[in-house]
Amino acid sequence: MNGKPLVSIISAGMSKFGKHEGLLAREIFGEAAAEAFSRCPKLDPKRDIKAMFIGHMGEAYEHQGHTGSTIADWTGLSGIPATRTEAACASSGAAIRAGIYATMSGLADVVIVGGVEKMTHRSTTEVTEYLAMASDYPFEQFHGITFPGLFALMATAHMHVYGTSEQQIAMVAVKNHYHGSLNPKAHMQKEITLETVMASRFVAWPLKLYDCSLITDGASCIILTRPELARKYTDQPVHIVGSGQASDTIGLYERKSLTSLNATKLAAKTAYEMSNTGPQDIDLAEVHDCFTFAELMAYEDLGFCQEGASGSLIESGETRLGGKIPVNTSGGLKAKGHPVGATGTAQAYEIYLQLTGQAGKRQVKNAKIGLTHNVGGSGATSAVHIFRSEQQ
Amino acid sequence: MNGKPLVSIISAGMSKFGKHEGLLAREIFGEAAAEAFSRCPKLDPKRDIKAMFIGHMGEAYEHQGHTGSTIADWTGLSGIPATRTEAACASSGAAIRAGIYATMSGLADVVIVGGVEKMTHRSTTEVTEYLAMASDYPFEQFHGITFPGLFALMATAHMHVYGTSEQQIAMVAVKNHYHGSLNPKAHMQKEITLETVMASRFVAWPLKLYDCSLITDGASCIILTRPELARKYTDQPVHIVGSGQASDTIGLYERKSLTSLNATKLAAKTAYEMSNTGPQDIDLAEVHDCFTFAELMAYEDLGFCQEGASGSLIESGETRLGGKIPVNTSGGLKAKGHPVGATGTAQAYEIYLQLTGQAGKRQVKNAKIGLTHNVGGSGATSAVHIFRSEQQ
Repeated sequence: MNGKPLVSIISAGMSKFGKHEGLLAREIFGEAAAEAFSRCPKLDPKRDIKAMFIGHMGEAYEHQGHTGSTIADWTGLSGIPATRTEAACASSGAAIRAGIYATMSGLADVVIVGGVEKMTHRSTTEVTEYLAMASDYPFEQFHGITFPGLFALMATAHMHVYGTSEQQIAMVAVKNHYHGSLNPKAHMQKEITLETVMASRFVAWPLKLYDCSLITDGASCIILTRPELARKYTDQPVHIVGSGQASDTIGLYERKSLTSLNATKLAAKTAYEMSNTGPQDIDLAEVHDCFTFAELMAYEDLGFCQEGASGSLIESGETRLGGKIPVNTSGGLKAKGHPVGATGTAQAYEIYLQLTGQAGKRQVKNAKIGLTHNVGGSGATSAVHIFRSEQQ
Repeated sequence: MNGKPLVSIISAGMSKFGKHEGLLAREIFGEAAAEAFSRCPKLDPKRDIKAMFIGHMGEAYEHQGHTGSTIADWTGLSGIPATRTEAACASSGAAIRAGIYATMSGLADVVIVGGVEKMTHRSTTEVTEYLAMASDYPFEQFHGITFPGLFALMATAHMHVYGTSEQQIAMVAVKNHYHGSLNPKAHMQKEITLETVMASRFVAWPLKLYDCSLITDGASCIILTRPELARKYTDQPVHIVGSGQASDTIGLYERKSLTSLNATKLAAKTAYEMSNTGPQDIDLAEVHDCFTFAELMAYEDLGFCQEGASGSLIESGETRLGGKIPVNTSGGLKAKGHPVGATGTAQAYEIYLQLTGQAGKRQVKNAKIGLTHNVGGSGATSAVHIFRSEQQ
């Protein structure tokens, strides 16, 4: 256990997730950056930060590309190398990986990585279309399939092979809404019942409205440095000890399995090996619950339970706050919201808060090792990172 | 002179630039990757390549995002971390930078970086709109300004301040078309006269049709490794000895100067210092001539001449093949073509050919040190890289 830190997080920030009417993505990112800068008074952003990677999925939302330089400028960092990373909903998971490369390269001592998306000013139809660009155009989109449909295909296969039930899938929503009710930055902060989920209208059978994550505006960021420099900026660094990113076919139709994501398995294997940890060492995790079913699949792909046993795991309550391995204490994409480009670094933000004891009502006691899991599209990208508190 | 290599290029590939009717971007990239793989028989791509960065500007062209994983899959590399970088027309210049970080980090011994764009199946109106996303939406696009207009503003300012003439600007097109006529992969392979440029219709005064780069389909890539591993793969590595990337305000209206690009000046300063070289050491350069005028501005920002003297420099013939510092021997964006995401690594491909003596009819004699200069939008991103041949 306890591999050598790759890089250290010296600060983190996140905007309120929800509707930000009348604001541009660059302005919402400012809220996240301002929090990160104010948490770390020893950092002089303009002097110290040497590179930026910004996860951003869709230029269609604001008819705006060139997001890296735009965000750098509006964050007061104009001049530094600033690049947008895009890997669909894993855009800022990929930004973390790119930021780790940059920090470890020796070319940039302090690197800011983050993500942002402004979505709520668009209609559901528009958002559905823009999100669909993360799937295969000629072989999926062209034929009318959208993301609820793709995940419904996987959920159906899992139900068929392992007997997973609609109720078990729905329990993810209940748990994550409970967690979201404890997070003042979550888009939805109210508890829901299993009955509410089960009675909501179908989007793509077996997935119902309450099985789907939210269309949300939001931004998030973390600031990285080399481990030996961390103490210069903070007394409470959080170390990234494992980093795995993997790819798979963009089309679901080409995959060997519909009941698991090979990219997640590959990324998790790399991250566990690099950090000399295993699933049994993880105190808490933020996983990619773009649909409730995706969280169940993540339990299996990350090794939190055997293949096919995720339905039982959610039923056991062990992934709820107070359980053995609380998952998505932030509320997850389901209740905290899913401003796609911002999701990967928002997961890291939650783990940062938890490992530094700043998670308030949803604090996991004695949390020392955390994991994030950020999926792009239907699984053509997966990024897994493992974090360790300084005290360890 | 002659800084320590940051990374080494062990191979490079480029598709034919031009119209690729009926092909997807991923298929065009395959042509570039196939060349790079076949040039380097000691490389086993599936075994050796550990990460990919793909510059791609617009998901609108093919209604396709998630380009990193898509390209990795269609290149036979599915499984590796694959991320799209976007920095407008400097998307693959930014990919080179990201690939340098990755290679130097120690997490990936061999990294492929490239870029691709499929544009010609769209109308000029559509392409103009998609390209405009690289400028500022609320303060530029919304008011109807497009890229020919933005560069025309800069050209006009330069003419006003320094007396640069329309003829001098047009000479860039004549030179680059001559170079393009020697490049079998260029989109346009025919010479043109100054009269043809001057008589072509205005797009945005003083820029005429022949002052504009081409709407092109194409892909390109280079393969990087750590310098100490290069000899394992090739007897003729090319070293990257300097890397600078910088950002500026996305909006032209916020800049201090309209006659130069501060991002280029910053990036060049970093790249020169890192490589312990200066403009006088550069044997040839590929610069970002998205419009003819942009090449003149680059001469000054890169230090090839004094501010305001670029008109005289093009007139002198010294930037033509056979001159002191040949610029855009490939034909540049003007004649080789400008498939935006592919341009940055296509510039590196040309320098790779030149420094390994494989540039055919357009070979620069005794070329040892080359430079690439890749600009995003109207200058909110600039990436400058300096390359050195092994013999040096």
